Amino acid sequence: MKKVAVVGYGNTKFSTDDIPIESLLLESTKEVFNTTNNLSQDLIDGVIVSTNDNSKYLGAILSELSGIKPKISHTVEHLCSSGTAATVSAFSYIASGLADIILVAGADKSDNPGQVLDWDRSRGEFTRPIYWASMFTKAHKRKFNTTEEELAVVSAKNHKQALDNPHAYSHKAYTIPEIMNSKNITDDLRMLDCSYSCSGSSSILLASEDIAKKFTDSPVWISGIGQKTSSASFTKNDLTNLDTTKSAADIAYNMAKATANEIDVAEIHDAFSICELMAVEDLGLAKKTTGAEFVRNLFNTENRQINPRGGLIGAGHPLGATGISQIVEITQQLQNKAEKRQVSNANKGLVHNMSAAATSSTVLILES
Amino acid sequence: MKKVAVVGYGNTKFSTDDIPIESLLLESTKEVFNTTNNLSQDLIDGVIVSTNDNSKYLGAILSELSGIKPKISHTVEHLCSSGTAATVSAFSYIASGLADIILVAGADKSDNPGQVLDWDRSRGEFTRPIYWASMFTKAHKRKFNTTEEELAVVSAKNHKQALDNPHAYSHKAYTIPEIMNSKNITDDLRMLDCSYSCSGSSSILLASEDIAKKFTDSPVWISGIGQKTSSASFTKNDLTNLDTTKSAADIAYNMAKATANEIDVAEIHDAFSICELMAVEDLGLAKKTTGAEFVRNLFNTENRQINPRGGLIGAGHPLGATGISQIVEITQQLQNKAEKRQVSNANKGLVHNMSAAATSSTVLILES
Repeated sequence: MKKVAVVGYGNTKFSTDDIPIESLLLESTKEVFNTTNNLSQDLIDGVIVSTNDNSKYLGAILSELSGIKPKISHTVEHLCSSGTAATVSAFSYIASGLADIILVAGADKSDNPGQVLDWDRSRGEFTRPIYWASMFTKAHKRKFNTTEEELAVVSAKNHKQALDNPHAYSHKAYTIPEIMNSKNITDDLRMLDCSYSCSGSSSILLASEDIAKKFTDSPVWISGIGQKTSSASFTKNDLTNLDTTKSAADIAYNMAKATANEIDVAEIHDAFSICELMAVEDLGLAKKTTGAEFVRNLFNTENRQINPRGGLIGAGHPLGATGISQIVEITQQLQNKAEKRQVSNANKGLVHNMSAAATSSTVLILES
Repeated sequence: MKKVAVVGYGNTKFSTDDIPIESLLLESTKEVFNTTNNLSQDLIDGVIVSTNDNSKYLGAILSELSGIKPKISHTVEHLCSSGTAATVSAFSYIASGLADIILVAGADKSDNPGQVLDWDRSRGEFTRPIYWASMFTKAHKRKFNTTEEELAVVSAKNHKQALDNPHAYSHKAYTIPEIMNSKNITDDLRMLDCSYSCSGSSSILLASEDIAKKFTDSPVWISGIGQKTSSASFTKNDLTNLDTTKSAADIAYNMAKATANEIDVAEIHDAFSICELMAVEDLGLAKKTTGAEFVRNLFNTENRQINPRGGLIGAGHPLGATGISQIVEITQQLQNKAEKRQVSNANKGLVHNMSAAATSSTVLILES
C-alpha cells in the first residue's frame, strides 16, 4: 500500500449565507491552488466531491470551473461523515496506484437535505438529529449523573476556541451560565448545546509518497484509517457509548501502530455537546466515566487538544465539508501552522467523524 | 496493486414500476447472496451504492436491510456513469489493501433526477440529454452522410438482443421501418433511437485475488481501468467523436496490456443510437467512419459482440444501475453463463459507460 499524504488545503468561511454549492466548492478549491507550491491543474488525477446537496455531477462541474480534466471524478455522500468517506476513497485511489494526486472538495449549504433522514420516519420522530442527541443526553445523565453544567463546558470551550478560527461560524464566547440559560430545544438539550448547519466548503489535496514533497516541505501522512457502519437507524441498546466510534478507533490505531495516549491533538464530531463527552472516552483519550472531567480540565487550563478550531459547535457544521475541515485543522496543527490555535508539540493527530447517531463512524490518524 | 475480481452479481427486472429505491437496491443485493457460493454478511468489508436518487445514507440503509455491518460505506454519484465510478472506487479499496470484499449496488427509479443537469441551464437547452444527442446526430449526418436507416439498425439490433435478456425493459423486436417511422422527438432523433429511464437495480460483489475463488470457480478480473472527465458542459468543438471515451480506452487498454482487436464482447453506452456508432469507433472496435457498417454487419449476422443484453436502448437505463448491469453482463459472458445471449469464445470483454454527452467516460477491461 503506497503512503498517502495531505499536501494542500483550503477553507471558506462557514456562514449562513445563501451561496451556490458550485461557488462554495470552487472557493475552497481556489484556496488550495493559491496556497500549494507547484500545483497545476494538469497534475490532478481525481476530483472527488463530498456533499449532501441534491445537485448532480458536481465532480465534473467543479473540474470544469477550476480547469481540471481528471481521470477520476464523482460525488460521495454518507450524511455527516461524507467528508471523511470521500477522503478515504481518495486515499485508496492513491494507495492502490490508480492515481497520484487527488483533490477532495466538500461543501454543503445551510439548508442542505442531509439534516433529515427521511427513511427513518417509520421509526418515529428520529429524523431530526436533536432527538437522538437528546436520548443520548438523557441516558448519560441517568447512568453517569452527567450535569447540564458539564455539557455546557463542552460548548463554552468550543465556542471560545472558535474565536481563533477565522473561518468559524461562531464569533462569540459564552459563559457557562449563558449556555445553561440558552433556549431549551428538548428536555435535555439547549440551543447552545447544538452545532449549526452552515454553508461552507473545505478542500484537501492528497498525494502519493512519490510526489508529496513537490507540494510541501511538511506532508502530513494518513497513517491510520478506521470505519464502521452498524445500521442506518436509531436502534442501539446502550445509549451511553458510540459503538462504531470504538470499532473505527480500534481499526485506525491498529493500522497506524499507535495508541490513544500518543494523540497530541484531535478533531471530534461534537454535533451536540454530549457527543464530545462520549467520544473522548470511546476514542480512548479519556478513561470511561471521566470524559466530563477530562474536557473540564482542558477548558480550565486553556488546553486546545480537543477541537482546536472550535469543533462543530464553534466552527459550524456544513455536512459535506465537516470531515474535510477537521483534516485541514489537524494538518495545520501537525505542520505547526495553526497560529493562535496551535497545540504545542503536535506530532500525531486524530480525526473523528460520524453520521446519524454514530451509526457510522470514521477515525483517521495523521502524522507529521 | 492487488488483483480484483467480480465474483458475484444480481439484477432486478428493469421496468417503469414505482418501487422505493431501498427496495430496488435490496432486491439485487439479495440476488447476489442467493447466487454466490459461501457468501455471508460478515465477510463484506464495504457497501457502495451507486445512484442519482436524492435519498441520503443509502449505503447504511442497504447495509441495515441486508444485515451487513461494513467498514466502508457511502453513495457514489456521477450521473449516467455512477455505476462504473462506484465500481472503480470499490476496486481501489480492494487493490489498496483497505478491504477484501465489497458489494457495489446500483439503482435508480424511472423518475430519477439525474436525467436533467440543472447546472447547465445557463448554457441553453441542453439540460435534457436528447438535445446533445440530436446535435451529435446532425453533425454525424453532415460529416459522414450517416443515414436514418443506419441509426435504426442500432436500435433494431439492441431491441432484438434484449429479447433474450430476462431483465430487459423492452420485450419487443422492431423492424427497421418501424423504427424509422417511430415518433420524431427532435429533427434528428425518433422515439426508438432513445434509451428509456427505468426503475432497476444491479449489484456486483468484488473480491481480492486472495479470496476470490472462495465465491466462484470463475472469477472475472478487472484488468484495465480508464476514466476521463473533460468538462460538465456541452462545449465540444468536434461533435463527431467522443474524446473522453478515446482517452479512457487508451488508459484502460494500456493498463490491461490489451488491444481493441482482442475484445470478444463489449457493453457500450448507447443512450441514443448515435452513441453506439460513435463509440465502436472511438473504442477502436471499428475503424473510423466504418461504425455503421460494423454494426450493420453484426445485425445481419446475428453476432452479439456489442451490447448482448440489449444495451441501454433494449435493456433500459436506470442510471445508477447501468454501469453495474453492463459489468454483470460481461461477467456472465466471460463465465460462459450468458445462456441465449452467449458470445462464443468470450475471454476478454469491455465495458464502456459515459455521462452528459461523453464529457465523462469510463472504460473497463474484464478477463476470465
